[in-house]
Amino acid sequence: MIKVGIIGATGYVGAELLRLLLNHPKVQVFKISSVSFIGEEISSIYKNFINKTNLICENAEEVLSNCDVIFTDLPHGLSEEIAEKALSENKLLIDLGADFRLSSESEYLKWYNKKFDKPDIHKYSVYGLPELNKEKIKKSKLIANPGCYPTSIELALLPLLKNSLIHTSRIICDSKSGTTGSGRSLSLTSHYTEVNENFSPYKIGCHRHLPEIEETLNSISKEKVKITFTPHLLPINRGIISTIYLSPKNKINLIELRKIYLDFYKNEPFINILPLGDIAQIKQVRLSNYCNISLHLNHREDGLIIVSTIDNMIKGAAGQAIQNMNLCLGFEETEGLNLISPSF
Amino acid sequence: MIKVGIIGATGYVGAELLRLLLNHPKVQVFKISSVSFIGEEISSIYKNFINKTNLICENAEEVLSNCDVIFTDLPHGLSEEIAEKALSENKLLIDLGADFRLSSESEYLKWYNKKFDKPDIHKYSVYGLPELNKEKIKKSKLIANPGCYPTSIELALLPLLKNSLIHTSRIICDSKSGTTGSGRSLSLTSHYTEVNENFSPYKIGCHRHLPEIEETLNSISKEKVKITFTPHLLPINRGIISTIYLSPKNKINLIELRKIYLDFYKNEPFINILPLGDIAQIKQVRLSNYCNISLHLNHREDGLIIVSTIDNMIKGAAGQAIQNMNLCLGFEETEGLNLISPSF
Amino acid sequence: MIKVGIIGATGYVGAELLRLLLNHPKVQVFKISSVSFIGEEISSIYKNFINKTNLICENAEEVLSNCDVIFTDLPHGLSEEIAEKALSENKLLIDLGADFRLSSESEYLKWYNKKFDKPDIHKYSVYGLPELNKEKIKKSKLIANPGCYPTSIELALLPLLKNSLIHTSRIICDSKSGTTGSGRSLSLTSHYTEVNENFSPYKIGCHRHLPEIEETLNSISKEKVKITFTPHLLPINRGIISTIYLSPKNKINLIELRKIYLDFYKNEPFINILPLGDIAQIKQVRLSNYCNISLHLNHREDGLIIVSTIDNMIKGAAGQAIQNMNLCLGFEETEGLNLISPSF
Amino acid sequence: MIKVGIIGATGYVGAELLRLLLNHPKVQVFKISSVSFIGEEISSIYKNFINKTNLICENAEEVLSNCDVIFTDLPHGLSEEIAEKALSENKLLIDLGADFRLSSESEYLKWYNKKFDKPDIHKYSVYGLPELNKEKIKKSKLIANPGCYPTSIELALLPLLKNSLIHTSRIICDSKSGTTGSGRSLSLTSHYTEVNENFSPYKIGCHRHLPEIEETLNSISKEKVKITFTPHLLPINRGIISTIYLSPKNKINLIELRKIYLDFYKNEPFINILPLGDIAQIKQVRLSNYCNISLHLNHREDGLIIVSTIDNMIKGAAGQAIQNMNLCLGFEETEGLNLISPSF
Repeated sequence: MIKVGIIGATGYVGAELLRLLLNHPKVQVFKISSVSFIGEEISSIYKNFINKTNLICENAEEVLSNCDVIFTDLPHGLSEEIAEKALSENKLLIDLGADFRLSSESEYLKWYNKKFDKPDIHKYSVYGLPELNKEKIKKSKLIANPGCYPTSIELALLPLLKNSLIHTSRIICDSKSGTTGSGRSLSLTSHYTEVNENFSPYKIGCHRHLPEIEETLNSISKEKVKITFTPHLLPINRGIISTIYLSPKNKINLIELRKIYLDFYKNEPFINILPLGDIAQIKQVRLSNYCNISLHLNHREDGLIIVSTIDNMIKGAAGQAIQNMNLCLGFEETEGLNLISPSF
Repeated sequence: MIKVGIIGATGYVGAELLRLLLNHPKVQVFKISSVSFIGEEISSIYKNFINKTNLICENAEEVLSNCDVIFTDLPHGLSEEIAEKALSENKLLIDLGADFRLSSESEYLKWYNKKFDKPDIHKYSVYGLPELNKEKIKKSKLIANPGCYPTSIELALLPLLKNSLIHTSRIICDSKSGTTGSGRSLSLTSHYTEVNENFSPYKIGCHRHLPEIEETLNSISKEKVKITFTPHLLPINRGIISTIYLSPKNKINLIELRKIYLDFYKNEPFINILPLGDIAQIKQVRLSNYCNISLHLNHREDGLIIVSTIDNMIKGAAGQAIQNMNLCLGFEETEGLNLISPSF
Repeated sequence: MIKVGIIGATGYVGAELLRLLLNHPKVQVFKISSVSFIGEEISSIYKNFINKTNLICENAEEVLSNCDVIFTDLPHGLSEEIAEKALSENKLLIDLGADFRLSSESEYLKWYNKKFDKPDIHKYSVYGLPELNKEKIKKSKLIANPGCYPTSIELALLPLLKNSLIHTSRIICDSKSGTTGSGRSLSLTSHYTEVNENFSPYKIGCHRHLPEIEETLNSISKEKVKITFTPHLLPINRGIISTIYLSPKNKINLIELRKIYLDFYKNEPFINILPLGDIAQIKQVRLSNYCNISLHLNHREDGLIIVSTIDNMIKGAAGQAIQNMNLCLGFEETEGLNLISPSF
Repeated sequence: MIKVGIIGATGYVGAELLRLLLNHPKVQVFKISSVSFIGEEISSIYKNFINKTNLICENAEEVLSNCDVIFTDLPHGLSEEIAEKALSENKLLIDLGADFRLSSESEYLKWYNKKFDKPDIHKYSVYGLPELNKEKIKKSKLIANPGCYPTSIELALLPLLKNSLIHTSRIICDSKSGTTGSGRSLSLTSHYTEVNENFSPYKIGCHRHLPEIEETLNSISKEKVKITFTPHLLPINRGIISTIYLSPKNKINLIELRKIYLDFYKNEPFINILPLGDIAQIKQVRLSNYCNISLHLNHREDGLIIVSTIDNMIKGAAGQAIQNMNLCLGFEETEGLNLISPSF
């Protein structure tokens, strides 16, 4: 049994990773760490783990030295040093933070206001979007797990950009996320009474997922991609939906476009291209690793609208990390991820 | 005291009208009607009216013949005949349905699949957006109260179009509405478990508010306006927010743009142009007659983003109808609408 | 115009008081204070006040020295000194905290772990439940505004205890409250993702409202009242409902019991005794100053069940405080409180 | 692989059964039926099943004749005939409706207003609460799966009644359920805007789960049990919590009481008796098959309060049915039910 560990297990993404990994048939969660809860049982922090695990939060070093696979779920700037050590011991490290998502140090500096701490190791990292980089992921020991918003948007656009079907200079992504996206840290914007019965855009024009989306899409697009991206906070716990507005180069036939999508994703187990007429919505994918995508035209048929939805905590974080681990370790890609979204 | 009546008082908009009118200092709700509940006290249907009113649902004829001001909240196609009678008796009729919103019969036919029943009276109707048509409204006896989505979008765009600041061929309106918008009628899409913890686009490219938005905006714009409009269902009761994406003709300075908005709306009591940096959100306006508007640039500063929010039941329906009534009757425009949104 | 002020205006109760007082026709909110936000406009903290008031948070002393009526919304232990000063200047002080709710200093010590700071002034205070103490309230200058849970429970039980209809040794109150009850302070128990889709009892057997309920009920009951009280946190913003289980001394006829309730509350404008068969629910009273009460028997007809519901922020706090102010100042009891609960 | 089928697969309980059974390693869902959707793919009705199953709704006869294990999720009165046929062919039938829950035909007549259709087969049925009837379940071919409220209440009370620790003449059960309990049928009480931001008791003193609770508890209690039971509707999708108020015969020591509970449930994999001080809440068990129970005293220590929570769709319906199937078929009791509740 492969020994896996989680550094930063008490954050929301860490806790979700733990939940999924505990039911993974081919790995054992051997160690977990947390800065704030050292010495405490995880089941005293998240009561859903009562009678499910006796794991105790230790320090990061314990995880790093005792596990074969390490997941890091940390604020940006804290994973590079850990990754360097993991690489030096030939372990697999999957980072769920932002440290390795951008390959451009200048973009990283611009958006995160800091330089790379360990610039030498970035060349070993692979952007862990399996539907884009599967073969590279399989050979890598350092995976940059994508952000939640980028996953929903990139999966919606890859087939279009690959086939140069749209004008790339004005792509509009109107995204909406549940509150787990902002994690367990307390803030007025996550206070129940502020979120409930409300809906609000935030960080208009300045969200850090923007350069990640552009860099990834530019890697597949012949023409430079320019994204306008507005995140919004939904009064629900889980789920992201992105409504994306595009200008096609030529008149779009949706039947043919759907074939292009089906073909592009024909080997991908977690992408559902919905039948024409259906509309993607969050409840179709909640608590699963799926990305559901639906294709639409505006009423003049001169504009294309793509709707894409994922569970931000699973395909947008912990599930995708496990999908990447499966690929790296040579398991079935779907191992431990055979989750069916509840009907309600 | 002016006698007012509501035809269709047991729908959500009708009930909201009743609630607001009962506290209006210058009118008396004298009669209400309902097809389904004739003979029943409104307080037995909506328990919030217990000890507030003894009004009993009667038939429409009772309302029409006994009141000076008539509000109609009916499915499309049912208001024209009533309006004809009201006009013939020189009464004020404010229609909260769709019958008089489109001046073009061909557009009406296209989107509503029927012709005007009483084409002769349409020339007397005025589109009841006070911030656009105040003087006409004051002189009219037949008001077409705007739709909820159109109100949120039109108010956001009027100053831009008046000043020809944007390209009009690709205006993208991503709108989100609470569930009261779909009314009291039962359907699976309004079933609690289907809406809760979900979020979904609907009627992509085919919502009937689209021609209303285009017709209204074209009335002020020199260049033809082409709207892409996607409505989404939010898991909240009240409120609409529209995030609108625009291409400016020239580089936008937000400080100057805000001055243009402030100037355009300088005499309007219900429009708040938020300070730069603030973002409009639904809770700012819930249960009030305000429209809050905030102005933003995307990160390249080549795209303009306007956020506009209203309470769909008040500024988007009942409140705006009362605002129109106040104008028609020569009252203070804010009479009975001095509502402060609850802080939570 | 009477000048009123709020000490502690940026808490949830303070903000709600401000909202209601701004629309009160006979008083002017002249000064407000806040420890944390001195110098800031209240409309920059609560955006719903934009264009409604320019009031700026000052220190408590400014409020105290410039206003005729002072509302205090402070953590326990901070109102006594302010009250002493107000009394010495013959001003009206209405305390929305806990400092004056218990007349017994030993009970206060037991539950709040501190003694009275100013024991001499407690004799001037009146427990501000108008339906119990109206005449005393009218003559008082120092009002202890009741707690939210106590209001819902006491109003449900007063007629029974006055008439000695039930056994008092085992009264079970199962109460459920929306999250505004725990205020604006951040905590994990008010974090959106923790509250949403959850429901939880808390402070079982140790909630500080318990001695208040018992003291108040003992003031009207011939036999000693023993309450079992369990509060629960509801995933909604506003509202309290208490389901109360009682053992009648003799077989109960609900028709007669309802007459007793109607008679007891015959002069009370804010109490609705629902028709038999109807069940009180939160939406009937949200955003109003009403308390709705319904009467039921269990299936063996040997147990009585009373359901009582209020808006915790209005009849349970700010609305009741204004009701008390109206009584003290000789206004109509309903002045400024003519609020109709929204239908949805 | 055992062939299982679901009669009534398009109701909420049926859909949940399907979801769980599709991931059960030892059975194959071979046929499903639905009266309303014959010929339709289940994945077109519940979109979460896209790419998970191609099952098509057929008629009940197809299920009955082709499967070894049959689950029925039907309105009361419709399962007896199916059960008779299943018994005659020596198949296992697990009924999730009410037809076999009451052994007393007179009680059934009183609460359901009809007699048994097939009185002869009732003697073969076993009440499928594994923690009470495990050995009987293992030998039975006809299982009456318990109701959701009864499961939460009975599990909380069995150890107390077994040990005669409480007075049984006044047991008060204040229960709160999410909306999935009322299923997929449309009604105003399940309309989103009516449920959201509301909370309401319903069927006070007349809910059909009452006789089931009393009959089950009387089977283990020496003294006759009298339940007062009030259900309430929570604005959440899933979960039941019951707050139960009891009069102990002697002073209770919670440490000893907890030992009694731990001992009673020592072989039960799905019962968590929480550490003293912890309080059971719905999010601990959502989407799992657990029942969490916490023990408390009121502030005078003369009253016992038990809090019990389950997922109404899993331990309260589909999960418990699978637990029963596992027992009947000789599988591990936890097979296919190794679900960890999500942390959020």
